[in-house]
Amino acid sequence: MPESLPATALQLRSLVQADGTLQISLEPVPVPQPAADEVLIRVQATPINPSDIGLLLGPADLSTVQVSGTAERPVVTARIPERAMPAMAARVGQSLPVGNEGAGLVIAAGASPTAQALLGRTVAVIGGAMYAQYRTMVAAQCLVLPEDTTAVDGASCFVNPLTSLSMVETMRREGHTALVHTAAASNLGQMLNRICLKDGIGLVNIVRKPEQAALLRGQGAMHVCDSSAPDFMAQLTDALVVTGATIGFDATGGGTLAGQILQCMEASIARRTPSEYSRYGSSVHKQVYLYGGLDTRPTEIHRSFGMAWGVGGWLLFPFLQKIGESAAQALRARVAAELKTTFASHYARTVSLAGALSADAIAFYGARNTGAKVLIDPSR
Amino acid sequence: MPESLPATALQLRSLVQADGTLQISLEPVPVPQPAADEVLIRVQATPINPSDIGLLLGPADLSTVQVSGTAERPVVTARIPERAMPAMAARVGQSLPVGNEGAGLVIAAGASPTAQALLGRTVAVIGGAMYAQYRTMVAAQCLVLPEDTTAVDGASCFVNPLTSLSMVETMRREGHTALVHTAAASNLGQMLNRICLKDGIGLVNIVRKPEQAALLRGQGAMHVCDSSAPDFMAQLTDALVVTGATIGFDATGGGTLAGQILQCMEASIARRTPSEYSRYGSSVHKQVYLYGGLDTRPTEIHRSFGMAWGVGGWLLFPFLQKIGESAAQALRARVAAELKTTFASHYARTVSLAGALSADAIAFYGARNTGAKVLIDPSR
Repeated sequence: MPESLPATALQLRSLVQADGTLQISLEPVPVPQPAADEVLIRVQATPINPSDIGLLLGPADLSTVQVSGTAERPVVTARIPERAMPAMAARVGQSLPVGNEGAGLVIAAGASPTAQALLGRTVAVIGGAMYAQYRTMVAAQCLVLPEDTTAVDGASCFVNPLTSLSMVETMRREGHTALVHTAAASNLGQMLNRICLKDGIGLVNIVRKPEQAALLRGQGAMHVCDSSAPDFMAQLTDALVVTGATIGFDATGGGTLAGQILQCMEASIARRTPSEYSRYGSSVHKQVYLYGGLDTRPTEIHRSFGMAWGVGGWLLFPFLQKIGESAAQALRARVAAELKTTFASHYARTVSLAGALSADAIAFYGARNTGAKVLIDPSR
Repeated sequence: MPESLPATALQLRSLVQADGTLQISLEPVPVPQPAADEVLIRVQATPINPSDIGLLLGPADLSTVQVSGTAERPVVTARIPERAMPAMAARVGQSLPVGNEGAGLVIAAGASPTAQALLGRTVAVIGGAMYAQYRTMVAAQCLVLPEDTTAVDGASCFVNPLTSLSMVETMRREGHTALVHTAAASNLGQMLNRICLKDGIGLVNIVRKPEQAALLRGQGAMHVCDSSAPDFMAQLTDALVVTGATIGFDATGGGTLAGQILQCMEASIARRTPSEYSRYGSSVHKQVYLYGGLDTRPTEIHRSFGMAWGVGGWLLFPFLQKIGESAAQALRARVAAELKTTFASHYARTVSLAGALSADAIAFYGARNTGAKVLIDPSR
């Protein structure tokens, strides 16, 4: 695999400046020689996940996006509203690399046998800074893709597959038997639906548009509730009665949705197990985890569902740490085995690094719409 | 202990009617012969705790209170706002006894040796329906008070002492080393302050008036933050930096306070352990439990403290069940040993059962003010 390497290559950087300007640019960085236990990957496919958009665009006002620079090295600027700046304090002035996960070809390797064994293989990795032409990585942390699997197939191996599987695992470990998911027509939501259909787990999908409901039903989803429907609360309660779901994962985070889910869970418990009045509500614990913040408003909880409830943040990596290496490895093994079926991802567009910085592309993925997932191919 | 027993005696009842009327009355109920393992208690002291007020008054508008009936058997009515009625559905039409805990004299006992041993003793009990002249109770569930301890001393043996001790126990079991408490000038708050001073645990007391802060400082409290002060958030953050508290117990439940506590916890963690920017916030779990609802507004959480956080309901009895009988017994033993010191309660007034139904008394305890705890003596 002899390939002449440039001394420097481009890496995408996001910078919040003290004056409230967001700047996104492609910066030349050295292409390092891999250490003994490392490999050098030519990145060929790296998705723009919702979790990347937060770091990439911050709270910038997308109506103020301006693109300058050159065709090869565009520079994006946008204005961050003043009220959003305090939360940015910790990153002001730091030029941050972006891109959680991706896949590509191993074009150089350190001296260790583990590293050498990967030369010429296509691997998937997670670890940040993937929006770049090259990325070094410890060989042992690479997921080697099967021979018939491309970098595009493996680009989204980690975030969505492990997140959706870990939601089901959280459900089991916390003693629940079915679950609720919001923004359920997302790539992640479709994946979770496939897991639950395959494993026979009750899943209540919450979407906010009729066409999203139709999309999920077309994929076999049994319980889909449209939050824009006038009878949403009744729909949701009915689905909770049937499934018995008492845990939910909410991608929206803000507004009243998490509290509405808890309220309908409590109503469903009352219908499933009618009993005497208790001033403290049912004793069945009801939990909603907020794993995203698509809705940036405050979380507003109208407490009308007793005292046995919880709302909180949920993140993949702390969860994987908590369950330990062998349990996490079991989840990764399942992803690898079902990469082209259960855990397949779909992209609306593929762009180059420079293409990801076009005004048109930013407007497209920045809107965070269903079905608008973008893949970056930095080798283009 | 020969005492001639009446066939019936009075028990306080709270009834929500379908038309939105709350009715509180004293109803004659049979005085039962205790079964073999039971005792009959003449109730002499039973407190009106915040948790009792919820059941007693419901969401009634106290400006509409009217008292009719006779001096011995007054009948209170008040109007429940229409918007509050849906949450009352499960109790409409049920005449509910009230009163979580209390103490009194054992005046009759079943045939079992355990029951007979209690004849003539003053005992404290928990189990509801204590706002009554008599109460039967399984003998084994009675806490026998020491000879030098009166029913008044033992009236509040359970709810506040076990709640405050269980907060500290929850703190320890969930891996925290210091805690935050709101409405901290309450009877419960003063008790928690005494526990923490005695045990050397960092406690951040949040109050909403300068005189409440002064009261707690006068009792040795080291960290008191007044939420009415313009620099409340800075005060709170400073106290959290010093104590390292990452768990809080909030009696107010509504509004922005729980979220503010989480925000200040996150800021204090950043000051205690400065590190690189993480878009997900610190990885230290921050928890606020809502154990009351003094503020009936929705809980409004401005998420600005990363993803490692939780908010949820917390109740004493599910907690005691979770930790198991021997751990719960250890907490009860400590309460008994420190009943006149750490766990002493103070009452602003003592009233009869009929007196508890006067307009004046209802306005007094219904306002839920600091230092306005009322004790009922049904033997008056």
